[in-house]
Parts: sequence; structure tokens; C-alpha cells
Amino acid sequence: MCTVPERPGVGEGVEVFFNPKGVAVIGASREPGKVGHMVLYNLKHSFTGPIYPVNPRAKEVLGLPAYPTVLEVPDPLDLAVVAVPARIVPRVVEEAGERGVRGVIVLSAGFRETGREGARLEEELVKTVYEYGMRMIGPNCIGVYSPASSLNATFFDPERQGFPPPGPIAFLSQSGALGASILDWAATRGIGVSRFVSLGNKADVDEADILAFLRRDPHTRSIAMYIEGVAEGRRFRRALEETTPLKPVVVLKAGRTEAGARAAASHTGSLAGSYSIYEAVFKQTGVIPTGSSEELFDIALALALQPPPKGPRVGIVTLGGGSGVLAADEAVSLGLKVPRLSAQLQAKLRRRLPPIASTQNPVDVTASATDEHLLSAIALLAESDEVDSIIIIPYFNIATISDEFPRKMAAIISHVAGKKTKPILAAVTGGEKAWDKARAMEEESSIPAYPSEARAVKALWALYRYGEWLRRHRGGEG
Amino acid sequence: MCTVPERPGVGEGVEVFFNPKGVAVIGASREPGKVGHMVLYNLKHSFTGPIYPVNPRAKEVLGLPAYPTVLEVPDPLDLAVVAVPARIVPRVVEEAGERGVRGVIVLSAGFRETGREGARLEEELVKTVYEYGMRMIGPNCIGVYSPASSLNATFFDPERQGFPPPGPIAFLSQSGALGASILDWAATRGIGVSRFVSLGNKADVDEADILAFLRRDPHTRSIAMYIEGVAEGRRFRRALEETTPLKPVVVLKAGRTEAGARAAASHTGSLAGSYSIYEAVFKQTGVIPTGSSEELFDIALALALQPPPKGPRVGIVTLGGGSGVLAADEAVSLGLKVPRLSAQLQAKLRRRLPPIASTQNPVDVTASATDEHLLSAIALLAESDEVDSIIIIPYFNIATISDEFPRKMAAIISHVAGKKTKPILAAVTGGEKAWDKARAMEEESSIPAYPSEARAVKALWALYRYGEWLRRHRGGEG
Repeated sequence: MCTVPERPGVGEGVEVFFNPKGVAVIGASREPGKVGHMVLYNLKHSFTGPIYPVNPRAKEVLGLPAYPTVLEVPDPLDLAVVAVPARIVPRVVEEAGERGVRGVIVLSAGFRETGREGARLEEELVKTVYEYGMRMIGPNCIGVYSPASSLNATFFDPERQGFPPPGPIAFLSQSGALGASILDWAATRGIGVSRFVSLGNKADVDEADILAFLRRDPHTRSIAMYIEGVAEGRRFRRALEETTPLKPVVVLKAGRTEAGARAAASHTGSLAGSYSIYEAVFKQTGVIPTGSSEELFDIALALALQPPPKGPRVGIVTLGGGSGVLAADEAVSLGLKVPRLSAQLQAKLRRRLPPIASTQNPVDVTASATDEHLLSAIALLAESDEVDSIIIIPYFNIATISDEFPRKMAAIISHVAGKKTKPILAAVTGGEKAWDKARAMEEESSIPAYPSEARAVKALWALYRYGEWLRRHRGGEG
Repeated sequence: MCTVPERPGVGEGVEVFFNPKGVAVIGASREPGKVGHMVLYNLKHSFTGPIYPVNPRAKEVLGLPAYPTVLEVPDPLDLAVVAVPARIVPRVVEEAGERGVRGVIVLSAGFRETGREGARLEEELVKTVYEYGMRMIGPNCIGVYSPASSLNATFFDPERQGFPPPGPIAFLSQSGALGASILDWAATRGIGVSRFVSLGNKADVDEADILAFLRRDPHTRSIAMYIEGVAEGRRFRRALEETTPLKPVVVLKAGRTEAGARAAASHTGSLAGSYSIYEAVFKQTGVIPTGSSEELFDIALALALQPPPKGPRVGIVTLGGGSGVLAADEAVSLGLKVPRLSAQLQAKLRRRLPPIASTQNPVDVTASATDEHLLSAIALLAESDEVDSIIIIPYFNIATISDEFPRKMAAIISHVAGKKTKPILAAVTGGEKAWDKARAMEEESSIPAYPSEARAVKALWALYRYGEWLRRHRGGEG
């Protein structure tokens, strides 16, 4: 045991939260509904390594042999999830340190968020964590969900709470409940997640630590964050600076207004800080800001699946004129361009499209279009040097587009893959049958789908903004 | 037959499109997939009055006796749906006039939207319609869907295209395809529609005519419109002036930008006009403008189900702190207020809520809240004079809120119904199970639900804006 506990370096030792060799649940409960029961249940139904319930009053929990304290747990063990009352958390965490555990996830509430006494308890806890050279997520959090490594260390009832499949988006949330509701939405929508971390009080591990891990994580292609306040601005800023050149980051910052900041202070005790400071940091570091929980994942999905465009010129291919107009309006409103196509390209399009099609841009292939018409228009725009990105609006609900379209689209995409520097995004208006096709297209061709023209264009705008930042950043380096 | 055909007065004779006594389908086809087949199919599966296929080469179509021309169709007959090639439309419409038909819905395309020759044909058609004192919807439209009177006179395949249940929203669309895709979405989402009209080329019946009908239609509580361009500005403006004092109107105007306007011109031949002129008209007449197809129905739903608030003060009741912060941010950003509650009201709340609840506003009842905690907070805000509207964020995915909540909520709502002048809207983050409860709450208590804090607050903003306009308008009158 060291006498002068030191905080580990940024990102040091956080790997254990995502790839543990063995996990103990301290406070494992036999009572359904209890946090210490549910987290064990979720681990048992996800994690393939050894799981050790710790409970001094039980021989076994959920069919797993239980241990009176973590000190008795056999190897391998490097992660402990803690679900005991706040006042005994420091003691069990000390035992975990004694036992050689490298990381603790403290789900228990009753720390800094409850006032002075809780803050004192939290300080004691952090001291213990550092004395043993451990890392800690929490306290007052809902845990870690890491489908990329088949680990569900959260305490939500899977009967009510959906958990998304493995996928490319990492998601950090200062608010556990908000994080859970977004995961639940993503599960229904079918958007995959690599890692989810509920940061809680951030007494030790914070955004900077997790970002350090995620920027090297091969399972993560984009990073979405919900934050209320950041205590160490320079640490946070440096972490962003080191992340965004490698991977795109989108942030939902709550407390942008005075009323919001007041609410944030009462929620997590965060000093939200002036939003203009955050805005400046986001702008300088190439972070995409957003104001809505829905848009957070809209943008994270585009950033995960598609490359940034090389410029602002958008080609729109639609089966319905009205949607083309709405997409063009939104693009121009956001500073993108919808250039009229050259006479030459329009002539090429006319040769491949129905006679009533409109070819200026938006290219309206009309509702009478077949798969081949739509694919021809997309391929011609993908190959041309007149647009930098493509929005497609396929009207799956009414159009004569076949069920084979997603497969054919995938073939086209892979055909032009050599030149593939143009992002393609889809606006899929319509109901559930249209969305079955949209999801098939997303899966087979990585073309993200959005339920309105405006949301598809906003996601494209985010890609554009990230691309512009990357160009400036690389220019600045060179 | 008159020698000088005159255009009927605004709204005159349009009732027949929604409540016909008998409907002929001119161009009824035996070939599945054809427009003249599908519209007959949809009529047969909706309309309870007599339906007459007209087809000179068939004895019967879809099991209904067919007539060689509309002239042979027996009584009662007052509406004809036309699905024959453009060049013979004027002749069959003349026959319909001869036969005493009062309204024709012309689905056929090939008129003004195709160029000069089509425009000439359209003029001829309108002349015939007026000569017989008829009204016409179209040409180049997808028809009328009026669940309030059990009439589906559109040609979309119900195997692919969803049709929403009867409900309070009327929807006019200049674009048929866009209209269909919104209907399809509404069917999946479970939002009800009173009347849907695809206006097509608006050669006779236009927005003004339909508004005149809708403002007196007992089935319609709010009106959503998609428009690209309006040929007769004064007529349109007067129709809005006469409608908005009675019923709220929300408009999605496409072609707000130059690129959008160019696309609109190529789509429906509309001169989109300067958007600033539309903006001024919308502001003066109390119309709520929107830029997205999703928001169009978000707002129409709030306008249909909830009263406008008496002022800008929003009370937020949430089970998750983060969502409360986001809702407060959005409200303040849109010019609403989130006032700190009085010490007295906070004391009342504290007596009824869990000890860790936050009572300032947002009222965070926390994820440990029961049905009764949440209902107490809502009731106290509903009864207080400190807020004018309420946003609730119930976290159905994780909370201990029971399946009985929607029913209990309905009881609370009816209890405070005497004083009910405060709109209540819900943000239901989360996935499909959470949404089952949201829909139950919407059905039992008419509380509209939105998938994000931002969308719920934006819909409340629209109610507020409409209420402000009504107050100014009535003040101006008095």
C-alpha cells in the first residue's frame, strides 16, 4: 500500500472495464428487482468469463457459488461491481484493492450528489481507490454495457429495458437514466453500440479516461457523449484534441441555458459553466454539438457509417418531388449547396431515367421508377465530380422499388467502392414496412436511414462539418 | 348547360368529396396494380354506400357490376373518381356532368405538369367542370382519404401503404407521394386523421376550398398542410384568416430557399414565391410554420389534443434529471420560461415526493418514483398558478411506473378537468415497450407523446404561439 495515493494517468488502466478476465459482484442479492440482483443477472446472461457473487449471507446467488467477501474470490479476478449501501462502499472497495482487483464500478448512490456527508464519503472512497492503484467508474452510476466484449454490467431489467446489438457507436453518459433511455431507443431502432459507460459522479474515471480508451478501440467508429458539466476543463479539452483527429465525436451538452444550468446543478451537482466556453472548445476540437437526444444518435450513426464529404455539394435523388424540395431547403439552410447539374450529366441521367424524371438536382426519378432507375441515378452521381455527397429518398411505402433493392444497392456501393469518398445517407419517410427495407439497406450497404428529409440532411451536415475540421486540422499540421 | 362557366364560391360544393351518396370509378380496371383497380379496391374496403365501376369492356370489376359509361350508372351517384388517360378525361368528366355528378376526383396525370399541351387539356377540363357546376380535385393527385366518413378514394396498395385510423388531424398535401408517406408513418405511429386530401394540380379545388370545409368539420380539430406554391395569394390568405380563429393550422411550406424553389418549380410547376411573403402571411394569420415533415405532425397532434397555454411558463416533471435539463434548455431557447417554483409549492411537493426528489423546476421525482409520486407532482403543478403548461418525462423504460399509470393519469386529468386550461405533453424517450405505455396514455388522456425532450417542447411552443396569436386576435376584435 502506498502512503501517498496518486491519480493514474489519463486512460491508464481503464481497459479492465471493457475486457475483464473475471468479475465479482459485491452485494449480489437473491432478491429480484434489487440492483445487486439485476447486475448479476445481466452479467450472467452476457459475460463468458467467470462471475463471482459476493454475499456474506448466501451460499449461492442465481445458481453461482457465492463468497462471503471479495478476499475469498479465486482467480481470475480483475473487476468488481459494487452494489452495497454507500457507508460500507469504502470498506468493500478496500477489500477489492487488497484482493488485487484493478477496476471497480460503484453503482451505489449516496455520495457527493446528496450533500456534504456524501462528499466526504466519496473523498474517502477515491483515496482508497488510488491507494491500491485501481480505477473506479461511479459512484452513483448505472454501470457499463459493452456488447463488443459481451459484457452487460448494468442493473436494468432486460424485460423492460432494451439493449442494442454490437455496433460502431460508443456512448458516454453523465446521466444514467438518460443513457438507458437512449440505449432502449437504439435497441428498438436497431442501431448498434460498441461500448456504453454511465459515468455517474466521475469521482475517478471521467470522459477523458474513456476517450483515451475509445480512440484506440477497434470496435468504435464514432463517439456520442451526454454531459452536464466537466470539472477539469483542460483535461477534457486535451482528451478531445487527441480524439477527434482519429474518430468523430458528437456531444449533447445539457445546461445550455440558465434554467437548464440550474437544473443540472440540482441533478448532478455539476457546475454547467457558460455554454459559450463549451461551444468554443467544440469548435476548436472539431466536436459536433447537438441539442437533442434524438439528434445525438442521428449524427453518431452517420459519423460511424459514412466518410465525411470532400465539399458542400449535395446531390439529391428522390422518388417524390416534395421530399426533394424539403431536402434541398434544409441543405441550403444549413450552408450546404445543391448545385444544378451540368447539361452533360443531365443528358446521361435522362438516358437512364423515366421520361417524366427531373434531372436538375434534386434528381426526381418519380414514383414510377424501378430499382434500376434509382440505382442508375445514384451511380451516376457517385461517379460524377459535380457533387460531394448523396441523399437518397426512396419512398419505400409507395414506390415500385423491389425487396431486392437493398441487395442491389450493396452491389453498386461495392462496385464504386474504389472511388468511395462520397457519403450516402437516406431519408426514409413512411411507416414500419418502409423501415424494414431501410434497415436492410443500412445493414447491407451501411447507408444510414432517417425518418425525415430534415434529419437526414442534418446528419449529412454533421459529416460535412467534421470533414471541414479535419481538412483545416491536417492543413494546420502540414 | 350554362354558356358562361363560372367558378363556384370558395368551399362551395366540396362536401361531396367527403360525404358522397354514391361513387363511380371511371376507368375501373380488372388488372391488379393499375390505378383504376386499386382505387376501386380501396373504396370497396372502406365506403359503405354504392360503388359503381365504369368500364366499357367489363361486365364486372372486383365483384361489382360494371357500367359502360357513367351515363348508365343508377342513383344515388354524386361523386366520380377518374382514372383514364389524360386525353379522354375531358370527355368522361363531361359525361359525369351530364349524369348529374357533383364532384370529380381526377387521379390521371398528363396535364399542366407536363407542359403546354397538358395545360391546354387542363383548361378544357376546368371549363367542362364549371359548365356543369361541378367541383374537381386534381388532376394529377392521389385522391381523398376520409376515415371520418369511411372513404378511401386513393390508389395506394394497402399491403404496402398504411392508412391511419380516424382521428382529429386533417391533412392537405400538394404532393401526393409526400402525403402518402406521412400517412404511412402516422398509421405506424397510431396518430388518427379525419380527412386527407391530395390536391394535385389544383386546377379547381385548392387549399382555400378545403379549409372552408374543414373549419366547420366536427371531426377535424387541427389542420396540417404541405404546400409548394399558391397561385392565388389573396384567396389563400383570406381562407387562413377565416380558419385560424376557429381551428389551428400548421404549414410545411417547401421551396423556402432558392434551390428548393427551383426544385418545386420542376416538381409541380409551382411558383414558390418569396418565402418571406409566406412567413408574413403565416405570422399575421396565426399559422404555425414548420420546416420538417416530422414536425408537421408533431405540432398538428399537439394542436389537436391540447389547449393553448395561457402564458409562457412551463412546469417540467421528470423521472430523470438529464431529460429535465434538456427540456428546460429547449424551452428557454424557444422563448418559453421555466420559472423556479415558490417555496410554498416546493414544500407541498416535498411532502408528496421521495426525499431525494428535486422540486425547483424541473421537478425531478427521480427514477425511484411510484405512480403516486408522479401523479402528485403533475396534479400539484396542474392546480398551481405558477405554470401555464406541463411537460412530463416518465421514463417508462426503467422507472417503477406501473402499467396502470395511463388509467390513473386519465382519472387525474378528468379530476382537474374543470380547471383544465393547461396543456400537458409528454416526452417518451426509450424504445417500443415504453411507447406501448405512451400510446395508452395518449389514448386515455389525450396527452400527446414525443420521442425526445426537444420535440415535445417544440410542440408545446407551437401551442403557445397559437395561444398568443388567439389572444392578440381576440383583443383586436374586442
